[in-house]
Amino acid sequence: MQGQNQQQAYDRGITIFSPDGRLYQVEYAREAVKRGTASIGVRTEDGVVLVVDKRTRSPLLEGSSVEKLHKVDDHVGAASAGHVADARKLVDHARQQSQVERVRYDEPIGVRTLTKEVTDHIQQYTQVGGARPFGVALLVAGVSDGEPRLFETDPSGTSNEWKAVAIGSDRSAIQEFLEDEYAEDLTLDEGVDLALRALSEGRDDELSAEGVGVATVDADSALFRELETEETAEYLDALE
Amino acid sequence: MQGQNQQQAYDRGITIFSPDGRLYQVEYAREAVKRGTASIGVRTEDGVVLVVDKRTRSPLLEGSSVEKLHKVDDHVGAASAGHVADARKLVDHARQQSQVERVRYDEPIGVRTLTKEVTDHIQQYTQVGGARPFGVALLVAGVSDGEPRLFETDPSGTSNEWKAVAIGSDRSAIQEFLEDEYAEDLTLDEGVDLALRALSEGRDDELSAEGVGVATVDADSALFRELETEETAEYLDALE
Amino acid sequence: MQGQNQQQAYDRGITIFSPDGRLYQVEYAREAVKRGTASIGVRTEDGVVLVVDKRTRSPLLEGSSVEKLHKVDDHVGAASAGHVADARKLVDHARQQSQVERVRYDEPIGVRTLTKEVTDHIQQYTQVGGARPFGVALLVAGVSDGEPRLFETDPSGTSNEWKAVAIGSDRSAIQEFLEDEYAEDLTLDEGVDLALRALSEGRDDELSAEGVGVATVDADSALFRELETEETAEYLDALE
Amino acid sequence: MQGQNQQQAYDRGITIFSPDGRLYQVEYAREAVKRGTASIGVRTEDGVVLVVDKRTRSPLLEGSSVEKLHKVDDHVGAASAGHVADARKLVDHARQQSQVERVRYDEPIGVRTLTKEVTDHIQQYTQVGGARPFGVALLVAGVSDGEPRLFETDPSGTSNEWKAVAIGSDRSAIQEFLEDEYAEDLTLDEGVDLALRALSEGRDDELSAEGVGVATVDADSALFRELETEETAEYLDALE
Amino acid sequence: MQGQNQQQAYDRGITIFSPDGRLYQVEYAREAVKRGTASIGVRTEDGVVLVVDKRTRSPLLEGSSVEKLHKVDDHVGAASAGHVADARKLVDHARQQSQVERVRYDEPIGVRTLTKEVTDHIQQYTQVGGARPFGVALLVAGVSDGEPRLFETDPSGTSNEWKAVAIGSDRSAIQEFLEDEYAEDLTLDEGVDLALRALSEGRDDELSAEGVGVATVDADSALFRELETEETAEYLDALE
Amino acid sequence: MQGQNQQQAYDRGITIFSPDGRLYQVEYAREAVKRGTASIGVRTEDGVVLVVDKRTRSPLLEGSSVEKLHKVDDHVGAASAGHVADARKLVDHARQQSQVERVRYDEPIGVRTLTKEVTDHIQQYTQVGGARPFGVALLVAGVSDGEPRLFETDPSGTSNEWKAVAIGSDRSAIQEFLEDEYAEDLTLDEGVDLALRALSEGRDDELSAEGVGVATVDADSALFRELETEETAEYLDALE
Amino acid sequence: MQGQNQQQAYDRGITIFSPDGRLYQVEYAREAVKRGTASIGVRTEDGVVLVVDKRTRSPLLEGSSVEKLHKVDDHVGAASAGHVADARKLVDHARQQSQVERVRYDEPIGVRTLTKEVTDHIQQYTQVGGARPFGVALLVAGVSDGEPRLFETDPSGTSNEWKAVAIGSDRSAIQEFLEDEYAEDLTLDEGVDLALRALSEGRDDELSAEGVGVATVDADSALFRELETEETAEYLDALE
Repeated sequence: MQGQNQQQAYDRGITIFSPDGRLYQVEYAREAVKRGTASIGVRTEDGVVLVVDKRTRSPLLEGSSVEKLHKVDDHVGAASAGHVADARKLVDHARQQSQVERVRYDEPIGVRTLTKEVTDHIQQYTQVGGARPFGVALLVAGVSDGEPRLFETDPSGTSNEWKAVAIGSDRSAIQEFLEDEYAEDLTLDEGVDLALRALSEGRDDELSAEGVGVATVDADSALFRELETEETAEYLDALE
Repeated sequence: MQGQNQQQAYDRGITIFSPDGRLYQVEYAREAVKRGTASIGVRTEDGVVLVVDKRTRSPLLEGSSVEKLHKVDDHVGAASAGHVADARKLVDHARQQSQVERVRYDEPIGVRTLTKEVTDHIQQYTQVGGARPFGVALLVAGVSDGEPRLFETDPSGTSNEWKAVAIGSDRSAIQEFLEDEYAEDLTLDEGVDLALRALSEGRDDELSAEGVGVATVDADSALFRELETEETAEYLDALE
Repeated sequence: MQGQNQQQAYDRGITIFSPDGRLYQVEYAREAVKRGTASIGVRTEDGVVLVVDKRTRSPLLEGSSVEKLHKVDDHVGAASAGHVADARKLVDHARQQSQVERVRYDEPIGVRTLTKEVTDHIQQYTQVGGARPFGVALLVAGVSDGEPRLFETDPSGTSNEWKAVAIGSDRSAIQEFLEDEYAEDLTLDEGVDLALRALSEGRDDELSAEGVGVATVDADSALFRELETEETAEYLDALE
Repeated sequence: MQGQNQQQAYDRGITIFSPDGRLYQVEYAREAVKRGTASIGVRTEDGVVLVVDKRTRSPLLEGSSVEKLHKVDDHVGAASAGHVADARKLVDHARQQSQVERVRYDEPIGVRTLTKEVTDHIQQYTQVGGARPFGVALLVAGVSDGEPRLFETDPSGTSNEWKAVAIGSDRSAIQEFLEDEYAEDLTLDEGVDLALRALSEGRDDELSAEGVGVATVDADSALFRELETEETAEYLDALE
Repeated sequence: MQGQNQQQAYDRGITIFSPDGRLYQVEYAREAVKRGTASIGVRTEDGVVLVVDKRTRSPLLEGSSVEKLHKVDDHVGAASAGHVADARKLVDHARQQSQVERVRYDEPIGVRTLTKEVTDHIQQYTQVGGARPFGVALLVAGVSDGEPRLFETDPSGTSNEWKAVAIGSDRSAIQEFLEDEYAEDLTLDEGVDLALRALSEGRDDELSAEGVGVATVDADSALFRELETEETAEYLDALE
Repeated sequence: MQGQNQQQAYDRGITIFSPDGRLYQVEYAREAVKRGTASIGVRTEDGVVLVVDKRTRSPLLEGSSVEKLHKVDDHVGAASAGHVADARKLVDHARQQSQVERVRYDEPIGVRTLTKEVTDHIQQYTQVGGARPFGVALLVAGVSDGEPRLFETDPSGTSNEWKAVAIGSDRSAIQEFLEDEYAEDLTLDEGVDLALRALSEGRDDELSAEGVGVATVDADSALFRELETEETAEYLDALE
Repeated sequence: MQGQNQQQAYDRGITIFSPDGRLYQVEYAREAVKRGTASIGVRTEDGVVLVVDKRTRSPLLEGSSVEKLHKVDDHVGAASAGHVADARKLVDHARQQSQVERVRYDEPIGVRTLTKEVTDHIQQYTQVGGARPFGVALLVAGVSDGEPRLFETDPSGTSNEWKAVAIGSDRSAIQEFLEDEYAEDLTLDEGVDLALRALSEGRDDELSAEGVGVATVDADSALFRELETEETAEYLDALE
């Protein structure tokens, strides 16, 4: 166990371990993730759902420019929480790897393979000096060989596959809600419902169609698609 | 929450996170932006307006040499606030990317694409060691496919699209004014009016044509143009 | 002998020795290993067994995505304990070396040779500046020339060959159990039994088939194989 | 606002911002400029005047070797204040850029373009680690397309165009004098007079022809020329 | 003379001298050697003997995998004490140099030449920054031109030739024993006896054939050979 | 103004300015110059004289090996004061530049040009990190186009041309003497006399021919020549 | 003058000057030289003598492996004092330069030229960061054009030519003895006598032939030769 003073001795350099074997910079980068608004992923048998909180600070800000949902390839998308510019950089890396794979093997990259490329990139920034870790977590959603897949990457470079998961602020409350409400046999529509209900769980005010982003990757078409604001509005209306 | 002493432990190296997940050097670079005189952007249906505060310290200084309005390409311009030399460097980067795109695809770069190139460049300076972040914010104004676009870049490498926005000193007062007065159906002329009125909102003294820079990107022509001092004077006369 | 204060003077830089000749960063990396859930290896005359603890934090997490068992080549596998992303990186290195060897000599890499490649890689990170050590230990299990082999690598880059060994949390309790129960003439089946019993030794709750990973490398076939959940369940049922 | 102790926490590394957004190393480099003897530039309709204080410490020192006036190209010259060797290095950079431009476009470099090349070079030293900023300011005087131009560069990499300006010690007193006395319709001769009177304003003793350097760039000829000591003496005699 | 506090001021960076001309990091690396179990070398007229302490921590550990005796080339071997992974790296370097020499000159490398290659490599790590010294000592034993040779390398990069020498824990007690008991006219058999007796001198418990490694380089055959456990057992039996 | 404590905060890194705009490392390098024995240069109409103090610590030391007078090229020589090895390195740089110039333009390098090459080299070491400034000053004496020239370089990279100048210990006393005694119409012989008298001014004991080095560059021949000890003795005899 | 506390502020980085112009790391490296056993050089008309103290710590250590006398080329040798591995590295550098010169000019390298190559190499390590200075001094003895030459190199990169000189422990006592006893007309035999007597001057016990190394470079043959132990014994017998 480390006291406050001792912790400070080990948390200012990315490349060192603390006496109890922790990498503080990586743990602080996880705090940067928690400072971001929430993103939620739900995997159903028909496909994967990504829902993001994109409330804006000002009515003059274009909500569409809030970078929380990212198309990576035709069949894969990502939702992020944390440091916005870091997310964009990681997603760019994912897009490049995806294209490289297409060119090399003439087929879409597997969702797991893609996630591994991303987490390998993240890990480098936690071991080699001269740079800080990425202060962002991603939910990578896609379809491989007809199977919906949903992965999470964290600032340490670890990935996990989930049935349903939340990242960002209020993660634990939302995750608890998901664990209570998730069912294996959800349809994609029910998945969107569940994710939106989970998101409102972590908030005081009501969700608005402009303040929420929704995307799906359908198992049949294997296509990533962001919903129009009107579509989102319909889901929200149905919720009440 | 961090006390004063603890904050100092984490804010002297660009590449590290504080225990609560913040990058202090990036936040301090935002302070450098606030130390700069204000720049304002207003998007209308007919085009985009950029207005900058370019009061000079001395009557012997040529106002035209105050680098706050920058032509990036025929159809894109930028206004800056913060560290002047950093702004010039970022704008140069934007110009190069713009030319590269023209050569490669034989068409003008999209305003969003251009903004992304700029913010990717900015992000690098917040993650990799050996350099400080850029102490400047930009408003990138242009027309893509006939659509007026207005983006803001900040020292973290985040970009946002705005209907109307202010950067630099007195940002919050000016932004509040814009939120009150902005209307969706402004003409370009009304946009110039609004921006000038917003600028004077943040100042004690009266605006002079020499102390203000105005530029527009017209939706039809898709051309960036800086107004002559006389044109600016007419707008200012009309304001009163 | 070093007091608490003096220790701190030498443990924050990887490239230096303490006055009593220790490399603290390497020792702290060993603590990172102890923070990981346990992995166990047992060598029998018929082959080698790897058993890993892969309990998940949430019912929504896919147990199959917990990266603790890794196929390295047809005839070699690895189990890890400690920093997950570091493990993946080391295993990737092992896979590459394995393929290089196959291409160069047209035959499978020896298990000892492979282990040496991995530990040489680890050692570099303990001597040259600009990076931290790997916070992970591996059990490398395979068959060379019909002989089952089981090696352990630690964060200092040392390797040891074992008849039976545990890494990760509760190492000492499990290792003690193995020393008491191990016999030279175990069959592969009995080896799986022993490893599972050893794992439950270090835990309060009962093992579940989903929370345990089992893999074997059979001496005859020289093939690495992860057991299906059902197969694991049968072993667990038989234990009781 | 920062107290004395807090300032010290942020001023020893060039690549970092202070909490209020300042780059102390750049501000200290400006102090190095103030420690240098004064240089003055005056732009008239007929050309540009540069006047420098080159008093020597010893009668045995050759005044001609005091490096304060620098020919950059046929049509451009510079006057410096601050760290002498830094000035020489910057001027060399300017000369090279000037020659590169001539070779590439077969015409003399624009004075504004040249100034931009110099300030870009300066900016690099304020953002990238491993070097200190340039401790020198330059006045760049020249003629482009028949137009006399006068620019100032500062250690942050900012440039400004002036009608008349002073750098170095006593800047504010001299600048005040220039603001009072400058007129738009000065002849080149009157410009020399003004600059010499401004220089004597900042000094206790009388100016001597040996202790002053004077250079002009004539708008018609577009040629940089340093005055002979006798010519300077005539101006000084006329002043009294 | 340095007090405790002053010593700490100079011992944390490899590349600096203390005021009294010492390199503390090198001295601490020598402590790492003393932390290792002992290795002993004895040169006789008939060849050279290496004896190493390879007691294992656990009965499940394969003693054969304890890396303390290393074949370098047909005619040269090494015994190490200290940091195990560093030893392996140094021995690899020795093997490469040995092969390079064979290829270049078509004859076996001289033992002295080989030792020099190793110590030059070690010295680099004590002078150039960015890495720590090697925390290991080697005994290099071999036959050149029919002459048995025995060299020691230490962490400073110094080498010495010995008739009989010990490295690692209990060095001084064992070395004293060797000085008392060594005779110039030992046979190789008697050399093995002497080394084993010396090793037991530094231990409380009795030597076991499994806990000891013995190797010889015979002067006639010029071949490095590790003894089988049975052979070692015979020597141990004869000792009593 | 800086107190003692504050000065220490800024003088340990070469690449930073102090709050009052000084580069302490450069100023400390000037102290290294003052620690060196004196060197004197005197320019006359017939040529240039260099006189150096080369008293030796021991009668067994060969005075001829004291490196204070350096031939740079046929027509240029240098005298140094300060860090001996730094002087040799700078002089080597000067020699190379001199040869490069000869090869490139087929004529001897100008003395001013040569000095500039040397001071540019010196300046680099005051701005870019990773090295300390040169702790040496040079007097560069030569003949260009029949004109005797005498330049001084200092550790900041500044050069000055002198009629007569001293560097090293007792600089101010000697310089004062030179200012009193120097005359424009000195012959070369009288120049040697003056320099020797100036040197004895700064010393308590009498000059000996072995303890003094004298060199001249004659304007007619344009050849650098070190005087034999006997010649020096004659001058010294004549002085009394 | 610096107090104890202030000295510590400047002595931990090789690349910086102290306020009084000293390089502490170089001075501490000189302490490393003083920690080494003594080496003595004596130049006579017939050649140069090198005598080194090579007492060993243990009777089992081969005195011949104590690296204090080094053949550099046929006509040049060196004796060292200080850090043994540094000496070997410097001597290797000398040997390479010597061979390069032979290949390039087809004649033996001059002793002065060789010394300059060595000291230039040493100087680099005192100015450029990332490495420590060499902790060793060399006596370079040889014959050039029939002339015996004897140079000393120190850790600053300074070289001096001597008639007779001592380095290492007890330097001042031995040097004083040499100054009293040296005569210009010594024969080579007498030179060996003198050096041996000087060495015993600095020691309490008697010299033994095994504990002393003697080498000569004869002026006629221009060949470096180490004396056999018997030869040394004869000189020692004659001394008494």
